[in-house]
Amino acid sequence: MRFASDNTSGAAPEVLAAIVKANEGYERSYGADAAMARVTDLVRDLFEAPEAEVRLVATGTAANALAIATHVQPWDGVFCHARAHIAEDECNAPEFYSGAKLVLIQGEHGKITPDALAQALSTTGESGVHGVQRGMLSLTNVTEAGTVYTPAEIAALTKLAKAKGIPCHLDGARFANALVATKATPAEMTWKAGIDVLSLGGTKNGCLGVEGVVLFNPAKAWELELRRKRGGHLFSKHRFLSAQMEAYLTGGLWLKLAAQANAMGQRLVEGLRHRQAHVPPADANMLFPEWSAGHHERLEAAGAHYYRFPAPQGRERARLVASWSTAEADVDRFLAAF
Amino acid sequence: MRFASDNTSGAAPEVLAAIVKANEGYERSYGADAAMARVTDLVRDLFEAPEAEVRLVATGTAANALAIATHVQPWDGVFCHARAHIAEDECNAPEFYSGAKLVLIQGEHGKITPDALAQALSTTGESGVHGVQRGMLSLTNVTEAGTVYTPAEIAALTKLAKAKGIPCHLDGARFANALVATKATPAEMTWKAGIDVLSLGGTKNGCLGVEGVVLFNPAKAWELELRRKRGGHLFSKHRFLSAQMEAYLTGGLWLKLAAQANAMGQRLVEGLRHRQAHVPPADANMLFPEWSAGHHERLEAAGAHYYRFPAPQGRERARLVASWSTAEADVDRFLAAF
Amino acid sequence: MRFASDNTSGAAPEVLAAIVKANEGYERSYGADAAMARVTDLVRDLFEAPEAEVRLVATGTAANALAIATHVQPWDGVFCHARAHIAEDECNAPEFYSGAKLVLIQGEHGKITPDALAQALSTTGESGVHGVQRGMLSLTNVTEAGTVYTPAEIAALTKLAKAKGIPCHLDGARFANALVATKATPAEMTWKAGIDVLSLGGTKNGCLGVEGVVLFNPAKAWELELRRKRGGHLFSKHRFLSAQMEAYLTGGLWLKLAAQANAMGQRLVEGLRHRQAHVPPADANMLFPEWSAGHHERLEAAGAHYYRFPAPQGRERARLVASWSTAEADVDRFLAAF
Amino acid sequence: MRFASDNTSGAAPEVLAAIVKANEGYERSYGADAAMARVTDLVRDLFEAPEAEVRLVATGTAANALAIATHVQPWDGVFCHARAHIAEDECNAPEFYSGAKLVLIQGEHGKITPDALAQALSTTGESGVHGVQRGMLSLTNVTEAGTVYTPAEIAALTKLAKAKGIPCHLDGARFANALVATKATPAEMTWKAGIDVLSLGGTKNGCLGVEGVVLFNPAKAWELELRRKRGGHLFSKHRFLSAQMEAYLTGGLWLKLAAQANAMGQRLVEGLRHRQAHVPPADANMLFPEWSAGHHERLEAAGAHYYRFPAPQGRERARLVASWSTAEADVDRFLAAF
Repeated sequence: MRFASDNTSGAAPEVLAAIVKANEGYERSYGADAAMARVTDLVRDLFEAPEAEVRLVATGTAANALAIATHVQPWDGVFCHARAHIAEDECNAPEFYSGAKLVLIQGEHGKITPDALAQALSTTGESGVHGVQRGMLSLTNVTEAGTVYTPAEIAALTKLAKAKGIPCHLDGARFANALVATKATPAEMTWKAGIDVLSLGGTKNGCLGVEGVVLFNPAKAWELELRRKRGGHLFSKHRFLSAQMEAYLTGGLWLKLAAQANAMGQRLVEGLRHRQAHVPPADANMLFPEWSAGHHERLEAAGAHYYRFPAPQGRERARLVASWSTAEADVDRFLAAF
Repeated sequence: MRFASDNTSGAAPEVLAAIVKANEGYERSYGADAAMARVTDLVRDLFEAPEAEVRLVATGTAANALAIATHVQPWDGVFCHARAHIAEDECNAPEFYSGAKLVLIQGEHGKITPDALAQALSTTGESGVHGVQRGMLSLTNVTEAGTVYTPAEIAALTKLAKAKGIPCHLDGARFANALVATKATPAEMTWKAGIDVLSLGGTKNGCLGVEGVVLFNPAKAWELELRRKRGGHLFSKHRFLSAQMEAYLTGGLWLKLAAQANAMGQRLVEGLRHRQAHVPPADANMLFPEWSAGHHERLEAAGAHYYRFPAPQGRERARLVASWSTAEADVDRFLAAF
Repeated sequence: MRFASDNTSGAAPEVLAAIVKANEGYERSYGADAAMARVTDLVRDLFEAPEAEVRLVATGTAANALAIATHVQPWDGVFCHARAHIAEDECNAPEFYSGAKLVLIQGEHGKITPDALAQALSTTGESGVHGVQRGMLSLTNVTEAGTVYTPAEIAALTKLAKAKGIPCHLDGARFANALVATKATPAEMTWKAGIDVLSLGGTKNGCLGVEGVVLFNPAKAWELELRRKRGGHLFSKHRFLSAQMEAYLTGGLWLKLAAQANAMGQRLVEGLRHRQAHVPPADANMLFPEWSAGHHERLEAAGAHYYRFPAPQGRERARLVASWSTAEADVDRFLAAF
Repeated sequence: MRFASDNTSGAAPEVLAAIVKANEGYERSYGADAAMARVTDLVRDLFEAPEAEVRLVATGTAANALAIATHVQPWDGVFCHARAHIAEDECNAPEFYSGAKLVLIQGEHGKITPDALAQALSTTGESGVHGVQRGMLSLTNVTEAGTVYTPAEIAALTKLAKAKGIPCHLDGARFANALVATKATPAEMTWKAGIDVLSLGGTKNGCLGVEGVVLFNPAKAWELELRRKRGGHLFSKHRFLSAQMEAYLTGGLWLKLAAQANAMGQRLVEGLRHRQAHVPPADANMLFPEWSAGHHERLEAAGAHYYRFPAPQGRERARLVASWSTAEADVDRFLAAF
């Protein structure tokens, strides 16, 4: 009953096997390995984007910070949800890499509405050199609240950003889970919906530690490479990043793993609702139900692991995350304990 | 005949096995894994430093940049050799992380002499707020030229730095190779010789990608953690960094691997000198001999891989690096081709 | 009828005369001028703070950015009002100088309430290395909305910050106006109320361009000097900054100038309220009344200068600022035109 | 006998009078003042550059740091003389503003030779993402050693830089002195010689505190404005910067003041050489002769003020700087004392 985070799981067998295989013999360093060329081909093919460029790093924070820094100036503002991972969980890394400032937008269930974005876009960047300039829009899908934007919802937001001339980033730490939840294609969820740069998560969904930065505007690739190196994120034995991502994207493994995680997440949602628990909207593998502290303690005593956060009225919010390795039996044990 | 770099080798079998084993089951994220506690114990034991703190990252540039940034202020100068890796090969990462400036010191065979350091220390930091302040000394061992500082040589340099009140960093990307070359203990090469913070390399010597930042002043540990996270270098599935470092430091593996690399390096040195080649001083697993372009081409045609650099008088300098996986047969084939 | 800003006024005659006098002969550069020593004495005397240190710069943005950077770390958050000058009008300068992030707190009439601050302090800095750390509190007095904190109100806020171990900054771009409005002494408004560092404004209140950074913790003085130089804010002909500040603080000039500005500001407030205009709370020399666009146009046609901002219900908000040089006749002409 | 620096002099009467005059009445803030428009016209006219843009700041360090930051990327290297003011006297400000690194080039008498520059250009920026990229050339005229580049010498250096595709900066803290020394026109010394951006000094040559950043590529103007504001260098009462620069550039005042400084500097050079002192090449208003410590003390006892630096063989180097306000009588008294 390990629901603390999808990053408490290990790597999927296929990914681990790829690491082991990649270890054979000598290979060129710093991204010149043969597997990286195959990764680029896979990304271009899967995203229907023959010009796209992809670069690999080992952490989601690095992917986000580099993706953002490559598209903004130090005097810019990056529009994002007030609860965005880049705002709350990266210890100022986006600001460190970019110099820019985050412009926080409130919104229910982790999502930005077109109205709220339009309001922020119209009141920011209107005071000449004195205020922050409009720099970028950054969305997260799956959102930090466990909800999922549809491609149409993303397109509605990027359209507003594009009308102001700014590029759009998607933090896809759980990108495969969002694809599975919406049945959208990678292209529909990204460049067809106005996304210019994607943080393509692998770590949470069955890799050891690999994330891609996918540029749909390939002109930025050299700057991204320089920023990656300057940030200390260029692996010398890069083949081990490539091997993970290659295995992850091959044969639909990424979607298979995410499908399992989402199925288990939804099994939790439904099981808890069936048991009268309050579960806010949750579309993929992560949910934030609330119940009393006493009830939390009983669940923990029964062997459940997850994070707890303060909530109003003496209750506490749980964060339950299912992963590719979550088994039905685990979920059912949890529901039974509930 | 792959001598381009020790980072073109894979991981040692013991390290790979540790990764595979670490993959089992669930584990806490972000450095709270059980293996990390064991790594700390190993480091404290091996370095005879019961208070030392160690934090893991995946690249050498990250280790250096974080180690330096944790010990200097943005208006400081970091004294280092003009050919130092931090000066030449990290795309301004040390400056990015610290804000400080590198003060370059010339020196033969990759080494700083006490005289040269004394001169730099006495002429820097003497102009009030106008000039750079004295911030830190950073040495590299094995040096970028393939030579090795003895503990006594290090102590002579750190003593000068300490007299000016500044801390000392050792870039130990090839630390195990330096230990093997000098027969020094880890403690003798570091804190007993005046080193305050060490970049403890694993990647080049048989790991997939792991480096430690070892703090002999543990008061800096929290700042280091914050800087690591802010730089995007905190692994969520941190167990995979811990597992590598644990295997590497267990049972003398790190020294065994370095001993093989150094032996093969020295076999190259001696074999080439025996064949009348000009080989500058080289004490470990890396050498920079010079010969004519035509001769380089013949070697490459025979299957040798290595880097070439321009040299005076129409010659070219080779960079030959042996690794833990270099076989005697490879060396001998190269010498035969020579 | 020039009410656009107090920085559209020139310098007071006493300040200009001091500049002219300071021009005689030769003088030491970079802050070693004799007048600077007198400024330090004046500040220590007026603030009843014999250990205080003061350094001069030419702009308010520089004073704020340096004051903040000297007290926080790059991974910190600076708690401030959502409409603070440091948040809205300094083009990311505080972030540029400090690396820190601003944590915005909403509040009516430009003021932070103890409840809102307590809430922000309790929910920030509680997620280990992942989130922003608690770094500093920054208040503005006179606030950006034209209201004024009393010393007791400041103390109530700094007490909360101090309980969390963080220092407190006061942006006193209009500090003299706040003193006049509250009849507080400089000490009561600052260190006696828990302020550790003050941006002491001169420019808006009758100087050409000079602001002081007053450190009540003198241990920070050297760091402040280095940051000032590194930011390019150390004047070579520093005597011209010293001369302004000396004249400004001598013989109560600063309070006399602020008293005139405030009196004219309050004359506007009362006159407009008497004429049934909606004027939100305004305690010093700046007010933000609202009326229809048509009415704005009539006032402009009559020769009034001021800024206009969008407001709800088809109305527009005016920003009217009186300065040391605003004459009663100007105010009365404006009220008559109204 | 005040020869410590040209910044120990006050402002020329014409400049001070302009400040006093500018103080009358109300004026728009933040660079929108009428005088600034006239400054732009003057610069365009004097430099024969109808498209040039100029922005004003108060210090030379700010001008240099902003000029450089506007033209390079954080991973770039800025080629400059090892003794350049930006390298030795600005407390890392250029690095702070730009993120870039300085690549130091040795050269006699403060000057870079084409050979040395060609060497640096050919060995920097050739190692992909690992090393620093070629970013910019920065020259100083009058050099820090008191020598002067002719336009032809500048052109020979910028031609090499341009061949590598990088822009060229001229630190003209003593630009007028360089013009007078070479009889070149402003255009000949700058854009006609390949300079893209100039730090146009006013402070050392008779202003209180004003420097221009002159962009011969006006496309950079908006970025420069944002960087100026973000650095805290945008004056609210900007009219006082404009007034200085307008007076300085009007009616040839700048050249008249520099001519006096240079004449006095050369009078010192010739007088000292006539008295058998060793005076290295010195072409304008600054010289660095050497003599024994005892002789320095006698001169100081006689009332001479200047800086002393250690020199080989028990001697000490003097730095003697004449300014616009240096009188022939002062020089002659010094020579007599000598």
